Amino acid sequence: MKFRVSSELAYNVNSPSTLLVNVHAQRLPGQTIIEETFKIDPYIRIEELTAADFETRFIRLEVDAGTLLKIYYQAVVDTSYKVIDRAQLEDVSLMQLDGEVIPFLFPSRYCQSDKLGRLAYKMFGHINNVYEKVLAIVDWIYENIEYASGSTNSHTSAYDTISEWTGVCRDFAHLGIALCRALTIPARYFTGYAYQLNPPDFHACFEAYIGGQWLIFDATRLAPLNGLIKIANGRDAADASIASIFGNVSFNAMTVDCQLIDKDFVSITHQDLYTKAIALTVV
Amino acid sequence: MKFRVSSELAYNVNSPSTLLVNVHAQRLPGQTIIEETFKIDPYIRIEELTAADFETRFIRLEVDAGTLLKIYYQAVVDTSYKVIDRAQLEDVSLMQLDGEVIPFLFPSRYCQSDKLGRLAYKMFGHINNVYEKVLAIVDWIYENIEYASGSTNSHTSAYDTISEWTGVCRDFAHLGIALCRALTIPARYFTGYAYQLNPPDFHACFEAYIGGQWLIFDATRLAPLNGLIKIANGRDAADASIASIFGNVSFNAMTVDCQLIDKDFVSITHQDLYTKAIALTVV
Amino acid sequence: MKFRVSSELAYNVNSPSTLLVNVHAQRLPGQTIIEETFKIDPYIRIEELTAADFETRFIRLEVDAGTLLKIYYQAVVDTSYKVIDRAQLEDVSLMQLDGEVIPFLFPSRYCQSDKLGRLAYKMFGHINNVYEKVLAIVDWIYENIEYASGSTNSHTSAYDTISEWTGVCRDFAHLGIALCRALTIPARYFTGYAYQLNPPDFHACFEAYIGGQWLIFDATRLAPLNGLIKIANGRDAADASIASIFGNVSFNAMTVDCQLIDKDFVSITHQDLYTKAIALTVV
Amino acid sequence: MKFRVSSELAYNVNSPSTLLVNVHAQRLPGQTIIEETFKIDPYIRIEELTAADFETRFIRLEVDAGTLLKIYYQAVVDTSYKVIDRAQLEDVSLMQLDGEVIPFLFPSRYCQSDKLGRLAYKMFGHINNVYEKVLAIVDWIYENIEYASGSTNSHTSAYDTISEWTGVCRDFAHLGIALCRALTIPARYFTGYAYQLNPPDFHACFEAYIGGQWLIFDATRLAPLNGLIKIANGRDAADASIASIFGNVSFNAMTVDCQLIDKDFVSITHQDLYTKAIALTVV
Repeated sequence: MKFRVSSELAYNVNSPSTLLVNVHAQRLPGQTIIEETFKIDPYIRIEELTAADFETRFIRLEVDAGTLLKIYYQAVVDTSYKVIDRAQLEDVSLMQLDGEVIPFLFPSRYCQSDKLGRLAYKMFGHINNVYEKVLAIVDWIYENIEYASGSTNSHTSAYDTISEWTGVCRDFAHLGIALCRALTIPARYFTGYAYQLNPPDFHACFEAYIGGQWLIFDATRLAPLNGLIKIANGRDAADASIASIFGNVSFNAMTVDCQLIDKDFVSITHQDLYTKAIALTVV
Repeated sequence: MKFRVSSELAYNVNSPSTLLVNVHAQRLPGQTIIEETFKIDPYIRIEELTAADFETRFIRLEVDAGTLLKIYYQAVVDTSYKVIDRAQLEDVSLMQLDGEVIPFLFPSRYCQSDKLGRLAYKMFGHINNVYEKVLAIVDWIYENIEYASGSTNSHTSAYDTISEWTGVCRDFAHLGIALCRALTIPARYFTGYAYQLNPPDFHACFEAYIGGQWLIFDATRLAPLNGLIKIANGRDAADASIASIFGNVSFNAMTVDCQLIDKDFVSITHQDLYTKAIALTVV
Repeated sequence: MKFRVSSELAYNVNSPSTLLVNVHAQRLPGQTIIEETFKIDPYIRIEELTAADFETRFIRLEVDAGTLLKIYYQAVVDTSYKVIDRAQLEDVSLMQLDGEVIPFLFPSRYCQSDKLGRLAYKMFGHINNVYEKVLAIVDWIYENIEYASGSTNSHTSAYDTISEWTGVCRDFAHLGIALCRALTIPARYFTGYAYQLNPPDFHACFEAYIGGQWLIFDATRLAPLNGLIKIANGRDAADASIASIFGNVSFNAMTVDCQLIDKDFVSITHQDLYTKAIALTVV
Repeated sequence: MKFRVSSELAYNVNSPSTLLVNVHAQRLPGQTIIEETFKIDPYIRIEELTAADFETRFIRLEVDAGTLLKIYYQAVVDTSYKVIDRAQLEDVSLMQLDGEVIPFLFPSRYCQSDKLGRLAYKMFGHINNVYEKVLAIVDWIYENIEYASGSTNSHTSAYDTISEWTGVCRDFAHLGIALCRALTIPARYFTGYAYQLNPPDFHACFEAYIGGQWLIFDATRLAPLNGLIKIANGRDAADASIASIFGNVSFNAMTVDCQLIDKDFVSITHQDLYTKAIALTVV
């Protein structure tokens, strides 16, 4: 499916600062960038970097104090996804692990799985099938955590969300990841553009590694799973934030958009996951 | 310098469990494994995995309930290091960044640099030279944080240590890393065997990325910097713990040893860092 | 019922220190001190203080560095309790509040009820009757939190326990209190000697203010409710710790004992609370 | 000095809720209420309660869902204060403790003094005189913590502020209290109306118990110390918040005002505390 995605960010830069901006759609098998524009206003020399362990595309900016910085990105992206029959996942009761996946078992800044072992085991440990276990986690989050815009901030972590029971997409994703890892299921953060997300914004959800592939889950149920355009994966939002800011910079404004170019879009939603699993990253 | 290192770990495994054991010295340019033995008692099929983003060598064990598990490692390792003149680092006032280094700027499980920006900037921001900045951080930690065995646990993070002012080598390293990252200096955790560490144990310190190389720092001052044999690097102890345990496993006993095989060892200590920097990883 | 209670505490005092010791059984309507001995070794001038808002009896000690301090307490105490018919509590669906009770609605050091509102409301908000609500809280804690000696420390709070799902009597009490307050039910910490507690130790549980009286609850189910001899009430353990220590003092050893003097003790346990409520403090 | 104080609060009440409102100036020796008006719109039966351990005047409201609640308070208050010569405090190097003061030594919800002992002792332990110790704490806070409106929320505690180095008056007060208690100096929260505070708002600072009296300190330096009209004392903001809310209530708007009625006001500011101490509560 082809989508036109765009984002505009504006910041007031109050001291000489470094920004690592991460708004580009990834180039991936299964996610083709057909066209792309990136602009900075005022003009600043930029540097594109790719982080070691993911395909994440960072733009590095060194900005002077007193700058009103604007960042524009626009792209046309063609995405695909893979449907996996539930039957194929029936007997996947054992972790299938390769070296690349190991770090996604470890606790991270916003996903303190080391602290949630007993809770996760008591709540979900009785479910044998790994895929069902993750579905149960995602359903529990959806049913119990209140989605409330503005209820959390950039320091909020899964350890907060498991007791405060409120958050936004980022918090829902962090809690899902933390509970998976606590049950020895590798899980990673996913951030991207999302079709039909209302109000339009960047979106976050997560992927769990089951049966040798990364399957997508979204505990918010706010956007179709086949309307996601990947910006980044990471251990959590620390690896995949839209902008990592080093310096005194204040956020000013943001607009995000995601339009369908193709026709005949048939949503795949959380309900579909009860019968078939979805892998976005076709490796 | 040649060292003979060894470790023995014993665990009571109370439920079917997975362990990722990480006691092997790394194979590196500048760190040669001359001989090596690894044994598990009782005999269990093991799998050696290498994590994606580091050279860390994990041994994966699936262990049945009711096992008294013993793990033995022994190796002869030849290490070297590189001395960098302070003069070479004088003008390194700007971050030199490549893609591989980016994740070491981000906050991690035990190094919440995102919360320590103001404190770090007020305390160390006035120092222009990056190398001096890191020395000042390491000196401040040494002078203010009380080294107290047993004062912290595996959940303790830099965010605790910055206010509780006590910890062990792991906590000293986490705080150093967090303060560096808060000042836009990439920093990573280092764990290994350490010559002359008393009592003998695994040791932890950290490396900061300055002038295009990883320089070693140890805020505990408990072991010579040229007596370190690397087991792992990582963002923090979450990536580099001796054993990551998934299941109900209780720790039983541990012995660690590090003997010099060569003669004529001349210690390089923290004091030497005022005149010359040390890089352990010769890339 | 008459009980003989005793405790011995030993500390190494490493710097000039102040201790507020709180091991005396309270003098109360319904709890009569028949005889009592308190000794300090070495002899130090002591001061008995009673805190403003409770009947708690503090002994204040100023101790020199280098002291091996021993504290002995022994008493014979006669206790009674009041049984309240469940029927009497049926229609108590509204908070009955007087000024003295207000502070027990507020969050405190170890009972961060301000953070647990959504969780408490979603889990227990559907129960209309206040007494049943508290019973449901206490049952949930008993069924889900693992009682594990040594799993927590003196900094552990309800905010930790609600996610880590492990703790000791103190943690069970803190979580019960926090959940009650989050639901606008005044609740306070209770600490004392406990008959048939095994191994013998000081015990902690909590009281909730329902229908104009303080009713006792113990989520640990470790001791009969009519075998409790009150040392202190408080907002949480911060008000009612056995010893509040200001200075460098290390804990050395402790013994606690509680023997029945009367005969024909009939235990009242948690199970009995389903049919009748128990008030220990007869005001 | 006579002041006219007023406040208006507006809330949207979304579920049946209980509010404990605390905006009344206290009636105290040294603080006389000359006239006073309190109104609720729409008209609701209210109840005035006085908390057990302080003179705090709570208004309790039970409000139905769907109410747009407005609360008006206005009063003319005559205040006085006591000046204590620094010389009188010179030899006060020992805690003077009576039972009423003991709870103000304990850690509380937002003042985790139990975690800050080492830091407090290393930073301020070398100062012998208790009054100077508190001045040094207050000066350190002023010089290092950034006053930034909106940087914190109602869950923020001294444990956060000691590492995040930002906050508002409430956070400055909590940190001062926590550091005092960590050094065995009783300290309590103070909230009230403040003359010349800009922008007008409720204000918070703290009192330390030195030489048998409660002395006022304000680490923000935002208002004259003799322009404070007391609403409440407490262990921290948990005891003394303007409104404790139980239910789903959203804050709508607030105005606060404090006008001088008398003439010839001579400010007493933090600078004056270097030569003389100020007690607001004349007991």
